[in-house]
Amino acid sequence: MKPIRVGICGLGTVGGGTFNLLTGNAEEIRRRLGREIRVEMIAARRTNPACDTSGIRTTADIFDVARDPEVDLVVELIGGYDTARELVLTAIDHGKHVVTANKALIAVHGNEIFEAAAAKGVNVAYEAGVAGGIPVIKAIREGLAANRINTVAGIINGTGNFILSEMREKGRDFADVLAEAQALGYAEADPTFDVEGIDAAHKLTILASIAFGMPLQFDKAYTEGISEVTPEDLKYAQELGYRIKHLGIARRRTNGVELRVHPTLIPESRLIANVNGVMNAVMVAGDAVGPTMYYGAGAGAAPTASAVVADIMDLARSFEHPACAVAALGYAPGELQPLPVLAVDQVESAYYLRLDASDKPGVMTTITGVLSQAGINIEAILQKEVRSDEQVAHIIMLTHSVQESQMNSAITSLEGLEVVTGKVTRIRMDHLN
Amino acid sequence: MKPIRVGICGLGTVGGGTFNLLTGNAEEIRRRLGREIRVEMIAARRTNPACDTSGIRTTADIFDVARDPEVDLVVELIGGYDTARELVLTAIDHGKHVVTANKALIAVHGNEIFEAAAAKGVNVAYEAGVAGGIPVIKAIREGLAANRINTVAGIINGTGNFILSEMREKGRDFADVLAEAQALGYAEADPTFDVEGIDAAHKLTILASIAFGMPLQFDKAYTEGISEVTPEDLKYAQELGYRIKHLGIARRRTNGVELRVHPTLIPESRLIANVNGVMNAVMVAGDAVGPTMYYGAGAGAAPTASAVVADIMDLARSFEHPACAVAALGYAPGELQPLPVLAVDQVESAYYLRLDASDKPGVMTTITGVLSQAGINIEAILQKEVRSDEQVAHIIMLTHSVQESQMNSAITSLEGLEVVTGKVTRIRMDHLN
Repeated sequence: MKPIRVGICGLGTVGGGTFNLLTGNAEEIRRRLGREIRVEMIAARRTNPACDTSGIRTTADIFDVARDPEVDLVVELIGGYDTARELVLTAIDHGKHVVTANKALIAVHGNEIFEAAAAKGVNVAYEAGVAGGIPVIKAIREGLAANRINTVAGIINGTGNFILSEMREKGRDFADVLAEAQALGYAEADPTFDVEGIDAAHKLTILASIAFGMPLQFDKAYTEGISEVTPEDLKYAQELGYRIKHLGIARRRTNGVELRVHPTLIPESRLIANVNGVMNAVMVAGDAVGPTMYYGAGAGAAPTASAVVADIMDLARSFEHPACAVAALGYAPGELQPLPVLAVDQVESAYYLRLDASDKPGVMTTITGVLSQAGINIEAILQKEVRSDEQVAHIIMLTHSVQESQMNSAITSLEGLEVVTGKVTRIRMDHLN
Repeated sequence: MKPIRVGICGLGTVGGGTFNLLTGNAEEIRRRLGREIRVEMIAARRTNPACDTSGIRTTADIFDVARDPEVDLVVELIGGYDTARELVLTAIDHGKHVVTANKALIAVHGNEIFEAAAAKGVNVAYEAGVAGGIPVIKAIREGLAANRINTVAGIINGTGNFILSEMREKGRDFADVLAEAQALGYAEADPTFDVEGIDAAHKLTILASIAFGMPLQFDKAYTEGISEVTPEDLKYAQELGYRIKHLGIARRRTNGVELRVHPTLIPESRLIANVNGVMNAVMVAGDAVGPTMYYGAGAGAAPTASAVVADIMDLARSFEHPACAVAALGYAPGELQPLPVLAVDQVESAYYLRLDASDKPGVMTTITGVLSQAGINIEAILQKEVRSDEQVAHIIMLTHSVQESQMNSAITSLEGLEVVTGKVTRIRMDHLN
């Protein structure tokens, strides 16, 4: 069979890794696929010293690749939104298949891109966009395709997981660990995308669409970062048998879908609670299979390239018959359903609450009375070291599941109590059942 | 598109689960696939009260299904070797695709079956045969296809994992927990296949072939059961920071491939060390992606059916163009390499050793001297409660990695020492790096 001719746009970390994997493992790839994957052309603004591209056509203009008649498949690894969108749409328009690692692009412009690809009869693959080298898109779209999927919950941002892991293990605070993560190259100079959960929300948006069969709705995702999490909260959570993880949670409810990224207490007995450092893991629960989990490196040149090249191989397998490939969001044309994403105040969740209260008789009764009146059941209470000079006690409570709007009112009431000092800290909790 | 017409052979636990999943989730399956999967015919010796098969053609003769002109795809769920082999070969001969959950069949007769299928231009899928509902065959054959895979290590027998988990958590002994597992239906009346590692070796054989690109070589797999593991060993291992799991390990070495199932100490910090009860997990490490892990239910009607139906959907996707499907063992025709499986005495491993020795001065020096002379380095030593009446101490040692033949000689020397009482207990250890 004739080789598949690939054009790579972008030769940075992931682009360079992809090029090196395609060339370094060319023989293994050919043995598996039964045909050669050939790098036909590279577009990059500068050379990558880690890559020997001699003998390969290069250009500074990515659009040259998208239009080149000798290129069968365009690999978009430039990142960002607008130019990437234009590049991908141009490639599709020229009848080329596309592989991308760009979650932001897919989460925000995926619906438009997949529609254009379907109209043109080409395929767009994006496994590398979610959880790096872990083949979780494949697991959901194909491996669990017989299931009605109910829950997806994932640690899908390595930077955030590294920071929370270090904070818990060493009692360090957020700013301190963030600075180290930046020095180590785990975090960007502007860490907003990672630590505020935007990157995770991009990935979760994609996971939810392929799990539940709905269009991408990134603008409806609720996002809360980890910058407010304290070493104290991590310690109290641990005392109560929990870990705090920055989790993306998508869950099917009778009246819609929950789509939310926020710090979350999960029982330490759950396997995913023990995923530490920069590693990623995604739990997927289906009605037939029950809970499953997928673990591995969520970023880095080689792991991401592993997913990019697997996508290229998948598309190569159906190159002569593109209709054999899996549909972009895992559902046949016309079969997506516009499930509503629930507003965060409609979400149901258990909670971890921490507050400071006067250390006087009857205070606990007053506080628990407020929750009880709001219909909120308490699962556990922890009262910690009173500072005798200030006569203030830390009170930590775990609640049963309630609707978020209900919890908001209860917190307002708690903060209005004379015996409560300052704000109530609230972290959502999930047993991942 | 016209429906795919499926014939199910066997309506026991997995057959019934498959039928119920195909009918119960028919709409979800149709939405994903864009075509209907229809149960055309069922062969079973008796009805399954959990299944409403009214309106579906049934027969008592499985070969009726394999020959039926209205059946596109035969699902083999009868189990066993000989009849299943004949059934599958008959179905292939009649131009039908085959899906099976039968690891014994694939491990032992897979080479012959895949050859027959390739000659006929049909596909045989077997995801459900390994680790039940976990899509690990798909992960290795497709998701990690760009990698040169180095190690596969898995907890791939739920019964064995349940027994070891209970023994560790509750200090119970093997026979006691086995009896409970039998009462709970986790273990068969004759538990040999599960507890002696034969079932795990079937699965490991399959995993090794698709990971390394070599023919199935079940007869070369080394198999050791868990019936000799004691609660004492589980406890000592834990004190030293390890868990004992019944692991299947396949590892690429310069001179061949290791293929072995045996109790194994693994560091408790490894995620897979924390997979307990009947759950399964498989770790796969590739040169690009690094370590990855796949976790879920390894058995049961619905989880296994999840994998069977996913396979049906995969084959349905390429029904009009069967060549688009992934090759049976993940490598293109003619691309498997006859890698030699190393004999167990050539395997390299670290060890946990436990022995009883006289509690006299100089004994430790004598014992460590034997190991040192054999070129074996000790990583940790634990000396436990001397029974004062017998003047015997338990000595537990962890060694660095050595070739098994070297360890065998050292153990013979240790057992020959006057100060050592009885046999030396030896359990292999793996850091899963």
